[in-house]
Amino acid sequence: MAQVLARPRLISLAAGFTDDATLPVSETRRVLGRLLARRSTGEPALQYGSTPGLPALRRQTAARVRAQDAAAGAERLPEARFDPEAVLITHGSQQLLYLVTEVLCDPGDIVLVEDPTYFVFLGILQSHGVQTRGVALEADGPDLSRLAAVLDRLRRAGRLDRVKLLYLVSYHQNPTGTTTSFAKKAAMLELLRHYERRAGHPIYLLEDAAYRELRFAGPDTTSALVAPGGAARVIYAGTYSKPFATGVRVGFGLLPEPVRRVVLRVKGNHDFGTFSLGQHLLAAALESGVYDRHVARLRARYAAKAGWMRAAMRRHFPPAVTWVEPRGGMYVWARLPRGVHTGPRSAVFQRALNADVLYVPGRLCYAPDPTRRAPDHELRLSFGHAGEQAIRTGLRRLGRVLAETCGS
Amino acid sequence: MAQVLARPRLISLAAGFTDDATLPVSETRRVLGRLLARRSTGEPALQYGSTPGLPALRRQTAARVRAQDAAAGAERLPEARFDPEAVLITHGSQQLLYLVTEVLCDPGDIVLVEDPTYFVFLGILQSHGVQTRGVALEADGPDLSRLAAVLDRLRRAGRLDRVKLLYLVSYHQNPTGTTTSFAKKAAMLELLRHYERRAGHPIYLLEDAAYRELRFAGPDTTSALVAPGGAARVIYAGTYSKPFATGVRVGFGLLPEPVRRVVLRVKGNHDFGTFSLGQHLLAAALESGVYDRHVARLRARYAAKAGWMRAAMRRHFPPAVTWVEPRGGMYVWARLPRGVHTGPRSAVFQRALNADVLYVPGRLCYAPDPTRRAPDHELRLSFGHAGEQAIRTGLRRLGRVLAETCGS
Repeated sequence: MAQVLARPRLISLAAGFTDDATLPVSETRRVLGRLLARRSTGEPALQYGSTPGLPALRRQTAARVRAQDAAAGAERLPEARFDPEAVLITHGSQQLLYLVTEVLCDPGDIVLVEDPTYFVFLGILQSHGVQTRGVALEADGPDLSRLAAVLDRLRRAGRLDRVKLLYLVSYHQNPTGTTTSFAKKAAMLELLRHYERRAGHPIYLLEDAAYRELRFAGPDTTSALVAPGGAARVIYAGTYSKPFATGVRVGFGLLPEPVRRVVLRVKGNHDFGTFSLGQHLLAAALESGVYDRHVARLRARYAAKAGWMRAAMRRHFPPAVTWVEPRGGMYVWARLPRGVHTGPRSAVFQRALNADVLYVPGRLCYAPDPTRRAPDHELRLSFGHAGEQAIRTGLRRLGRVLAETCGS
Repeated sequence: MAQVLARPRLISLAAGFTDDATLPVSETRRVLGRLLARRSTGEPALQYGSTPGLPALRRQTAARVRAQDAAAGAERLPEARFDPEAVLITHGSQQLLYLVTEVLCDPGDIVLVEDPTYFVFLGILQSHGVQTRGVALEADGPDLSRLAAVLDRLRRAGRLDRVKLLYLVSYHQNPTGTTTSFAKKAAMLELLRHYERRAGHPIYLLEDAAYRELRFAGPDTTSALVAPGGAARVIYAGTYSKPFATGVRVGFGLLPEPVRRVVLRVKGNHDFGTFSLGQHLLAAALESGVYDRHVARLRARYAAKAGWMRAAMRRHFPPAVTWVEPRGGMYVWARLPRGVHTGPRSAVFQRALNADVLYVPGRLCYAPDPTRRAPDHELRLSFGHAGEQAIRTGLRRLGRVLAETCGS
């Protein structure tokens, strides 16, 4: 495998990296140059900060999410949820996911996830000995009747007391590109509240909004923070890394009490605070408009790349392969006929490798769940890292493999 | 308390922050300016890296520790321990301490620590449900006969199987300034190896070398990495943050197998890698000599500050108060007569607060240990953050309090 990956001709449509060409090199140079031009602004950027994060960035973060929800049409904006005090700045949003899991979950607990879901989060859950149940996805988010059925089955098995969390990648989901509608978020919170009484403790909705700012088509969707019951039960995770620069790992969370307090304490043990330089860089980029201008360029670029991918898939993929066109993020989820497998040992994967093109096998994105069999006929393609030529060539190669294996 | 801390006149000799005036603002601007002047060097600094860290920085780190040990007179330099592959770059060395604890310790396990020790590490241990046993310090490190007695008592109680780690802040220790001699490191490893047979598993020596580069008097001491048995049992933690800029959290570890492999996996779950920007900044600063020139200036500055502190203590402290003069780091540990307490509710602490000067009560630096009573007549003073005037004024105020409470 390592040998294959080292091939010079290999085109990876697997990695979720952002596009090198979009990285804001000169913008970062300018912002940091200004920040470090005077000792009064340079010293705080090079000194320890506090564990919750830079106050200015926490204020900007609360205001930014609030403004996004207002623009998306939120009818109510509960002040407590957009209080800078509720914000914790983390070393990437990944760290927030880890901290929340560490704080809320004990070995043997159960976390509900989308089917399929962000596979790195599955690694975090596994490392904490947490079990998972998958909830099938529809075009507008998790299937509510399936969610109810999962919870009801757990209730009947007397295991509701182990359910701590529902994890939802709510915007342009990794891996499927799905965005969950606000109506569904509200309905999910209501369902969780219903079962919470039997559970005997809160069941939180962990809304991972990592791709929210990478929307390039259609309107924004309101976050679960503003849904009824969201104020006390929604943990909202976001990031500045993917929209700006992945080498500057600055993520954030908006957390309800008492989760915020405990997560903060554990964060203090992890690292007593995210590196100041990145927080000051982001705060200055947000303040000056550099960040927003960059995000606008990035969206246009990803829209173009999604377009190239769409055109190439239409041209090269056999009709038996279907996919949903993404409106943001950096992934396309493709479905082959049910009998055609895509896993690491499958003919499709091996032939793709031989043709020097790499994808993420869909089954890796399904959580372990003894109550259902994970599908094995899907694949994740990313237009994040690859450039135009790589996208076209990669999909032509993959199309040839699929034509051979799925029939044309 | 919060009200007191907000007083404008308050001088804190408590915080372990570095000195604002020493932060390398223009140096960082220059290094980052060069790095971000070209896309070929700017893009990797703004892109995701790999979980173990930037290969160049891992090579530099291995070579740097090796060169320090060679210069300190090491007679053997086991190649495997200075292999870049053994290096893991972390979000501050604090993260490494956390990861090692998470990987090696289960609730109910026991970690041996110095008496007193770095109190933030005690918080990490507590959060993992780990118990502690303290080993008294002598001028050249832990008292070996006490270490043997602690291990022997645990053996007799049938609890050796719970001992996983000995934690040693080996250079200019926080809080006492003690540097552990190489002979003692070697003897400790031999002792651990002896009891390991009964424990039924490895007992690691976690050498926290956070202050090694902040030496301003006397020769350097060889690390435990090169002691007999050190190759397989020493986990060496270091940092670039304190010597360069605490706002750029870049620490590192040199880890033996299989610890390295497991810590790496858990690090992947925490954040899949330390932010690239800081790693590229440090690699460039090391490569260009900017880092070494800065460390030389910092050492001179801390030597001067330690001198001011020494002079002020001699002038203002009553003869009943004793201390050891540090040869590095940023702390002075002072001992009052045994009957005079220094804890947060003590007359000394309260009077000091009323006089607008703050220190760290010594007892906070003692691990919970049911087998001994923690001393309560010591205090930690830091010359890290305070400037010359603050040091002089703070110690004059504190001297007055001590004269009242300890007699002159």
